Amino acid sequence: MTKKTAHSLRLRRVAIDTYKENVAYLHRDCHIYRSEGFQALTKVEITFGQQRPLLATLNVVDDESITAPGQLGLCLEAFQRLGLPEGTEASVAHAKPPASLHAVHRKIAGERLDFADYEAITRDIVEHRYAKIELAAFLVACGETGLERDEVLSLTRAMADSGEKLDWQEPLVADKHCIGGIPGNRTSMLVVPIVAAHGMFIPKTSSRAITSPAGTADTMEVLAQVELPLDNLHQIVRKHRGCLAWGGTALLAPVDDILISVERPLSVDSPGQLVASILAKKLAAGATHLLVDIPMGPTAKVRNQAEALRLRKLFEFVGDRVGLQIEVMVTDGHQPIGRGIGPVLEARDVLQVLENHPDQPRDLREKALQLAGRILEFDPDVRGGQGYSLARDILESGRAMEKMHAIRKAQGRTETTPPLGRLCQQIKADRDGHVIAIDNLQMARIARLAGAPMDKGAGVDLHIKTGEHAAAGEALYSIYAEFDADFAFACEAAAQNTGFTLSD
Amino acid sequence: MTKKTAHSLRLRRVAIDTYKENVAYLHRDCHIYRSEGFQALTKVEITFGQQRPLLATLNVVDDESITAPGQLGLCLEAFQRLGLPEGTEASVAHAKPPASLHAVHRKIAGERLDFADYEAITRDIVEHRYAKIELAAFLVACGETGLERDEVLSLTRAMADSGEKLDWQEPLVADKHCIGGIPGNRTSMLVVPIVAAHGMFIPKTSSRAITSPAGTADTMEVLAQVELPLDNLHQIVRKHRGCLAWGGTALLAPVDDILISVERPLSVDSPGQLVASILAKKLAAGATHLLVDIPMGPTAKVRNQAEALRLRKLFEFVGDRVGLQIEVMVTDGHQPIGRGIGPVLEARDVLQVLENHPDQPRDLREKALQLAGRILEFDPDVRGGQGYSLARDILESGRAMEKMHAIRKAQGRTETTPPLGRLCQQIKADRDGHVIAIDNLQMARIARLAGAPMDKGAGVDLHIKTGEHAAAGEALYSIYAEFDADFAFACEAAAQNTGFTLSD
Repeated sequence: MTKKTAHSLRLRRVAIDTYKENVAYLHRDCHIYRSEGFQALTKVEITFGQQRPLLATLNVVDDESITAPGQLGLCLEAFQRLGLPEGTEASVAHAKPPASLHAVHRKIAGERLDFADYEAITRDIVEHRYAKIELAAFLVACGETGLERDEVLSLTRAMADSGEKLDWQEPLVADKHCIGGIPGNRTSMLVVPIVAAHGMFIPKTSSRAITSPAGTADTMEVLAQVELPLDNLHQIVRKHRGCLAWGGTALLAPVDDILISVERPLSVDSPGQLVASILAKKLAAGATHLLVDIPMGPTAKVRNQAEALRLRKLFEFVGDRVGLQIEVMVTDGHQPIGRGIGPVLEARDVLQVLENHPDQPRDLREKALQLAGRILEFDPDVRGGQGYSLARDILESGRAMEKMHAIRKAQGRTETTPPLGRLCQQIKADRDGHVIAIDNLQMARIARLAGAPMDKGAGVDLHIKTGEHAAAGEALYSIYAEFDADFAFACEAAAQNTGFTLSD
Repeated sequence: MTKKTAHSLRLRRVAIDTYKENVAYLHRDCHIYRSEGFQALTKVEITFGQQRPLLATLNVVDDESITAPGQLGLCLEAFQRLGLPEGTEASVAHAKPPASLHAVHRKIAGERLDFADYEAITRDIVEHRYAKIELAAFLVACGETGLERDEVLSLTRAMADSGEKLDWQEPLVADKHCIGGIPGNRTSMLVVPIVAAHGMFIPKTSSRAITSPAGTADTMEVLAQVELPLDNLHQIVRKHRGCLAWGGTALLAPVDDILISVERPLSVDSPGQLVASILAKKLAAGATHLLVDIPMGPTAKVRNQAEALRLRKLFEFVGDRVGLQIEVMVTDGHQPIGRGIGPVLEARDVLQVLENHPDQPRDLREKALQLAGRILEFDPDVRGGQGYSLARDILESGRAMEKMHAIRKAQGRTETTPPLGRLCQQIKADRDGHVIAIDNLQMARIARLAGAPMDKGAGVDLHIKTGEHAAAGEALYSIYAEFDADFAFACEAAAQNTGFTLSD
């Protein structure tokens, strides 16, 4: 067998931001480009001495000021992650297609994959061997009814094994997670302070929003740093019994974050991927006890009791087999929770509840207390049925607020919270009536168009909720945005469909 | 409703080749980048005066020598297609996600789409509104059992409508197509000269290889130009009654070529997409009569009689409804056809058959005569059952060879045919035995690794076929490659699995 050829080039930083996709640049006249018969979009394997090889997609350059013959250009993120100086000697060769793509093709053809397949797939993804179109193919192939429950279990294990794993050396490590789909549903930021104030250990790692206008990490970022080094995170949790940090930087189940970079622009989020993604992160984060919140309603992710039951069973099936004690609560998801939708507005709601403010959104407070109560009952010393009143005492006494202050300070409190978007428009009722429905999907869509979660101050502020009366001309909600184009899109969407249904 | 904002920038050519994906570059300090809140990988809509807007994926640049603040950089292919000079005033805004993506999500969720959905999807794809990951999602969602036959019909119609349509003003326009999967199967290059020599009208537009080591277009390109302007193509066919050109440049069903740019790196090719892709091209090319070749064998695309029957019915169902008279032949696909695999080697086989050369590959000749015979019987004046002997007469008399010469000359005969790859290795039998099987997939894989179809002279030349005897140490086949890395990969693959099974 002939040896793989490799040729020497000099590394060069190319100041182009290609967002999570490794892109390498070679000049069209470079002897290596010509002799190896590369094509634009070829996948190449780049080697720097003894380091692990780097996989990248090739772009071909005709301009020496970007990358000259004899140089190997590398896009910003890949260059920074690599951490080698310009001029470092590099060799480049055709990359073999990742072996695990065969398994993806079997999945597309409707076959059942086993643990070894999922392990190989996640390993190749973490090593950046998959192009974006290959990630998209994998996600869609797993979509909807595509995964059997044994496969979800295999995928969960493989994802949990794909990165670091935390071991807290604690007998009970509590966590909570909502499957999402309900705008404004920021209960974690209340549950964590309440539970930690009781002394229970709850190191909450959160994701950023995938398809929603704000995730817990996006909202917490309004109040404190959420991207923390692992060492730092450990110290904070040991001291305060809780934290509200983003799992992404903590290297937990890193394959999840790569999948999300494609899930997000594609807006795909299937049940099997959902369960695997949630449980893998929790396992890697060292959780032993987990409360899962499944909101149900006509415009929620889960529309009826049968679906909710199926999802609950899937969580329980996988949870039992990976050693996580899981409680599932099916909650009211027929409208947004709280008033604000978007990071700054949701952070305001959370603070009002913690402050026991007279204007606090009652539904957010009530839901947070119910969830916190169920988690407190994981504690063997808490009597069954007593969790709710214990949680209420902690909140009303101000101990939850104190705990939140301590966590913010420990994670790095933001100097100034970002302002609301400078552009604002009220959307008004066109006639008298009671609000009989608010469409979660439409409200989320308007808030996203307005710029949330990327623009912290963008979003929607609800003034009237289901069951309340609206007079003709009264404001149903306000749209906030930072940028003109976003503002125009959001207002246009609201003009076409307010998301509110009024009674006759 | 507020008006969409747009800002003025100066167009700049960025000499980077990003292969069929429009990429726009903005400097991170550009006022428009900042004020519009763009992100890397955002999709943007670029407007130049009264021209149709252009959709592109945004890359963010930190180097003024690539794109300075106030400039809008555009990658090579998009810049060339646009055809405007540098400095042209451009405005840029957030692109709305293509409306038809909702339909793709419904397809992922297992729903049935209608004609209006497929029409909207193909229109958005042709207008470059889909990112590559969105194309991948659509293809995988349609994959395998994903399309009902009414959907295949809708997709066929929508794809055929997506570009130009030829009207030959002829009562009978014949065509043939093989579903692929059999290396070396270059019957079209024999069938077209035979049928055209008879005087029947057969303007054959061919595709390039998707997942195989050579398509008819790739192989014909060894002998003549295949990328012809539409006017030119018309003249040639009117005069010679036949041609062998690539449909891609002819603007026929252009959506197919965009889908292929993702199908190819992904290696996805599902039955529904297959039928729609073939029939849409044929419809747009103005065919009235079509012979479809379905090779069947243990390593062919179609493995058994039941699958072949299902596919035949699907072709017939769609064909009947779009007004194409379709004949389907299920042929022997248990090993490669002919000896050569790869453009140059396959062109050699074709010429040998046309020349009635004593060493010609008999199986290729026999199959071409059977297919040509069935097509000749589309002629009302040819008696049923007489097509085969008529085809044989045309071939043996040298009239087919004359016709091929005329077509090559008309399309633009290549000055010199490309040489075989400079690197060669023989793969030998490790013991005595009869060849009882040759794996189509493995032979195709080895030829592709060797560089086919991009490198015309790369591929595999079979010296022994099924049923023949091989002595220990006798060469089973030779591998040809142009580039070292390709050669190493191909030889390594052959060392692991020769693709040949010998009897004991």
